[in-house]
Amino acid sequence: MIRFGSDYQEGAHPRILQRLMETNLVQSPGYGEDDFCAEARRIIREKCAAPKADVHFLVGGTQTNRTFLAAALRPHQGVIAADSGHIAVHETGAIEACGHKVIALPSANGKLAAGQVSEYCRRHFTDDSREHMVMPRVVYISNPTELGTLYTRGELNALRGVCDHWNLLLYMDGARLGCGLASPENDLDLPFIAATCDAFYIGGTKQGALFGEALVLCSDALKPDFRYIIKQKGGMLAKGWLLGLQFSELLRDGLYEELSVHAVRQALRIRRALREMGASFLVDSPTNQQFPILTDGQVRRLSAKYAFSDIQPLDGGRTAIRIVTSWATRPEDVDQLIADLREALA
Amino acid sequence: MIRFGSDYQEGAHPRILQRLMETNLVQSPGYGEDDFCAEARRIIREKCAAPKADVHFLVGGTQTNRTFLAAALRPHQGVIAADSGHIAVHETGAIEACGHKVIALPSANGKLAAGQVSEYCRRHFTDDSREHMVMPRVVYISNPTELGTLYTRGELNALRGVCDHWNLLLYMDGARLGCGLASPENDLDLPFIAATCDAFYIGGTKQGALFGEALVLCSDALKPDFRYIIKQKGGMLAKGWLLGLQFSELLRDGLYEELSVHAVRQALRIRRALREMGASFLVDSPTNQQFPILTDGQVRRLSAKYAFSDIQPLDGGRTAIRIVTSWATRPEDVDQLIADLREALA
Amino acid sequence: MIRFGSDYQEGAHPRILQRLMETNLVQSPGYGEDDFCAEARRIIREKCAAPKADVHFLVGGTQTNRTFLAAALRPHQGVIAADSGHIAVHETGAIEACGHKVIALPSANGKLAAGQVSEYCRRHFTDDSREHMVMPRVVYISNPTELGTLYTRGELNALRGVCDHWNLLLYMDGARLGCGLASPENDLDLPFIAATCDAFYIGGTKQGALFGEALVLCSDALKPDFRYIIKQKGGMLAKGWLLGLQFSELLRDGLYEELSVHAVRQALRIRRALREMGASFLVDSPTNQQFPILTDGQVRRLSAKYAFSDIQPLDGGRTAIRIVTSWATRPEDVDQLIADLREALA
Amino acid sequence: MIRFGSDYQEGAHPRILQRLMETNLVQSPGYGEDDFCAEARRIIREKCAAPKADVHFLVGGTQTNRTFLAAALRPHQGVIAADSGHIAVHETGAIEACGHKVIALPSANGKLAAGQVSEYCRRHFTDDSREHMVMPRVVYISNPTELGTLYTRGELNALRGVCDHWNLLLYMDGARLGCGLASPENDLDLPFIAATCDAFYIGGTKQGALFGEALVLCSDALKPDFRYIIKQKGGMLAKGWLLGLQFSELLRDGLYEELSVHAVRQALRIRRALREMGASFLVDSPTNQQFPILTDGQVRRLSAKYAFSDIQPLDGGRTAIRIVTSWATRPEDVDQLIADLREALA
Repeated sequence: MIRFGSDYQEGAHPRILQRLMETNLVQSPGYGEDDFCAEARRIIREKCAAPKADVHFLVGGTQTNRTFLAAALRPHQGVIAADSGHIAVHETGAIEACGHKVIALPSANGKLAAGQVSEYCRRHFTDDSREHMVMPRVVYISNPTELGTLYTRGELNALRGVCDHWNLLLYMDGARLGCGLASPENDLDLPFIAATCDAFYIGGTKQGALFGEALVLCSDALKPDFRYIIKQKGGMLAKGWLLGLQFSELLRDGLYEELSVHAVRQALRIRRALREMGASFLVDSPTNQQFPILTDGQVRRLSAKYAFSDIQPLDGGRTAIRIVTSWATRPEDVDQLIADLREALA
Repeated sequence: MIRFGSDYQEGAHPRILQRLMETNLVQSPGYGEDDFCAEARRIIREKCAAPKADVHFLVGGTQTNRTFLAAALRPHQGVIAADSGHIAVHETGAIEACGHKVIALPSANGKLAAGQVSEYCRRHFTDDSREHMVMPRVVYISNPTELGTLYTRGELNALRGVCDHWNLLLYMDGARLGCGLASPENDLDLPFIAATCDAFYIGGTKQGALFGEALVLCSDALKPDFRYIIKQKGGMLAKGWLLGLQFSELLRDGLYEELSVHAVRQALRIRRALREMGASFLVDSPTNQQFPILTDGQVRRLSAKYAFSDIQPLDGGRTAIRIVTSWATRPEDVDQLIADLREALA
Repeated sequence: MIRFGSDYQEGAHPRILQRLMETNLVQSPGYGEDDFCAEARRIIREKCAAPKADVHFLVGGTQTNRTFLAAALRPHQGVIAADSGHIAVHETGAIEACGHKVIALPSANGKLAAGQVSEYCRRHFTDDSREHMVMPRVVYISNPTELGTLYTRGELNALRGVCDHWNLLLYMDGARLGCGLASPENDLDLPFIAATCDAFYIGGTKQGALFGEALVLCSDALKPDFRYIIKQKGGMLAKGWLLGLQFSELLRDGLYEELSVHAVRQALRIRRALREMGASFLVDSPTNQQFPILTDGQVRRLSAKYAFSDIQPLDGGRTAIRIVTSWATRPEDVDQLIADLREALA
Repeated sequence: MIRFGSDYQEGAHPRILQRLMETNLVQSPGYGEDDFCAEARRIIREKCAAPKADVHFLVGGTQTNRTFLAAALRPHQGVIAADSGHIAVHETGAIEACGHKVIALPSANGKLAAGQVSEYCRRHFTDDSREHMVMPRVVYISNPTELGTLYTRGELNALRGVCDHWNLLLYMDGARLGCGLASPENDLDLPFIAATCDAFYIGGTKQGALFGEALVLCSDALKPDFRYIIKQKGGMLAKGWLLGLQFSELLRDGLYEELSVHAVRQALRIRRALREMGASFLVDSPTNQQFPILTDGQVRRLSAKYAFSDIQPLDGGRTAIRIVTSWATRPEDVDQLIADLREALA
């Protein structure tokens, strides 16, 4: 069984394990107040051109999202997200469990359009009965989205404008941010993201680390007492330096970018091959997740040898599947998959 | 600086890192549904003589406590704990953030007495206005306690009896359970704990793992849908096999016990030496935390060379400090500490 | 200004005020443990043919919904509702504030179809990743709905079947239940509702009381400790007998039904007149809320003299408005409204 | 049975019922945006010499406390209260259900001393591990306290000073505020309270209204979006004018003060008589609650004829009971009680 089911099915890049071995008996204070975290924070601030940003390291994405949103929202406020957004669908109500509604707006490609958000806010803030409804306060976007798509600079600027107009915070879930930035179709960079979003996180779990996400708080209003809330929400790792160590190793000399380029390159090879075979896609993704549409027979045939996800049954006996590559994907496995796809689709 | 400040200031036992290296590129499904976790579960059930127990692996202690209590309690119910209990003091209100009161009962030595719990429950359940008060439903104990003390078989049996009488659940926080079981003054074992508690956890973070706690659900009523709640509370590690791998390595052939014996032995060397010097203790601990009382001058002097915690200022210019040993404590560091203590206290 | 804006813009039926006066100095125990509440409970159980039901009196609808759902749901569970449902839209996230997602399914007429619920549950419970999603546990319906429509016996039976199949609870918000039962198109009655739903409430606030809702818990599993949760959620009225007194007065000899018949009759007079004028409706409602579609000019003209709600802007310069009648609506005001509508629409 | 069990066992002062009757069919907009509430707000601002205060009307005390605290606190913050405080003991964990710890400090007489609060805050804010503990943010006091005692101007000023020093909010639960202000031992007034507290409420339920509490928000930071939170917490009464009407009737010409003076006078008659009989008291209360200590035999004897609460069993076969008077207490019932006490204690 060759697994294309997710980008978190192997351990970490060997350099990370190597550094874990080397530093294993170095004594460090706990809870992220150590030298490794300090070093990683320094690197991240520098790469983001955000010298005053606060950087916190958490273990996983759901934890990061819920901790951030719990800190950012007052009780009556909610977060706007695409209806395919991770917080709207795949976190078992983690945001609601912190007391906040996820206001899900329809989206075909995983992205929120500035116009949608603007229209929703206009209706809310001009309604005489608005006190009977949840007040929108944060706009949650993921980049790449859960469907592999990317925001452009123009789209992000437009969302920023809407947020400024309606006094909203803009938050980017960057679980796969490296793969986004590594896409040939990307026009963002970290300084732009840090200047445009109030907060975002740089994903580690799906990008070469054993685990870990680096949350960057750009806006001053979000900073006070954040560590209290990390602790309360169960996200303060005792041996916090394990997080700092991984991020500093990934980010200090381009390893993070290199691994992301690899993952995206393998995915785009699959995209190109499928396009040549005439396959269609649920959504056109320029990143490490691909969503081809196959017949149910083709799906069955491939399932014998490969692990991937069935995303959505379609009419005509067809199914959209998800194929995911990562830093660890072996090019020869992609070769084999392409060959087998060619045979199955012939 | 030699650190006796906590038992989570080094990485993991080298065998764990070794196994991480060896298995790094094995592809596994996420979220704890992998072979490593299955193996660790099998070992734990066997060691606990609890073939039907459910075992879940979480990253840290606060996370484990809040996830368990959120799953176990209805909205109007609370958890009884000693006023020194970790959930009562050092989790930034994590339990309250899940909606539940921690009912803190006074304790001088970190332990809850059956009589206290019984009396509290009797008062609650016989009060005509009890609906205006939080209903006690879980008894939280830690073993060893936050003050290093241990429950005896008799004490646990008595608590069990009270729980049965008042329809309460008994939950043991085992962050340092290995050190408890390794103490020469201990008379518990895992099968007894599993038979007596409704749930408990076997700590990894402070016991030789990089991180991780193994939660054992003994009572059937606690089992349904538990994984939903782990996910919601942010505790479901994407690369869940990292937890299973560590626990199976620690538990499969006695490593866990060996490391615990080491930690306790080093602590008891310090206790013995201090006793010989005539020092007194805040509490008499037979495990890996020691709480000697020193003069403020002695504390200052030692602080130049050693890291430890000031626990409590006392009258007469004295302070109770906490010295903690772990699996990684070097005997030569303990030798040195004892020598320096002898000099300082002379 | 004549108000058709809501059914809670006058006080209470005079018989209620009369009884308040007469009993004002009778000393009663607090919190609903008095003779008035006992009497009202007896009458409700009898009218519902539900001798074992638990009946609790709360002050308002949002309070009742959130208290019931907080009591019924475990942390990972959510409630399915129509996207127009009161809990989904107009309670400022009260359910989410208790930690639970409102799973909003699309509905054009305010009602949930059994098929929708069934399909949603099938997808959830057959998904391998269901632990990453909120588990549906309660089906929330309102009858009449927020759009004035009614469930039939067949529809309720079908929902009951789905609930039984997927282990869901069926809960009816009866804020305007009297008006539902008083509609000529209704085929339900209280014994059927009590036998079909796990819980429901009989609205008082909009049905002739100063305030108050009577929550009926039919299923045994919902009963334990419910009063604790009412107290915790802030819904336990100190002078609880004020609630019992009102319900016993309304229900003891048919006043509740009489007032509901009056409200519906006035609304249906407006419906009939509008139909005769050729007006169209956003939804066809047989109860005390009517949703005619007018031109913006007509709306402006009527607004000078009448208070009502703009519900939804439509294309072609038209708007759907909401006209509501109640027990207190004066027939002569309806006469006048019909005359003015005739003039405006001519 | 003559009831001295609480101050909420009769309805409302007849003038309130009279006004309800007279205005019953006046049509008003809902949710507190009506003329009655506007009038009551105007009167309260004037009496408090707080022209910029926001005033909100809620139905009950627990609801008011939890709504205020939910609005005032961020997730990691808690509220300091005396261990006998209503929120600490008698609200079924309503504050915890909103996610916040009640930090209970020991108190013998129901009051918090400035020194206690200061010392707690000093310890918290100077602790290196403070992020692992709940941050104190609000100081909750009740005046009169649950034990009938009163704060002096000096004590309130001292608490204000501590709050300013540690950046805390000062909140007064005034469920029985009228009785406090009416006590001969009181030296506070409404303008002083409004100038010293960040928020407080003027109780209605126990002071002559059917129900209702008037929450006064003095500090600007507490004002934004407060109505959203009232709605979310279930406290927004549909027929909100019922609250405004009662408060304007009580406050417009001294009725509130008159009723409070009556209640306190009756209680102090009982106190004086008991003192003359040589009785001792659990606490010395100058307000409408009295806590005499009787022998168990005396308690039994009186119970046959009077309803009151057993507060605390004491040694020597004695019990502290609570006797409460109200605006509705009949002087002849007090005469009779005193006579019967004299006989029982002879």
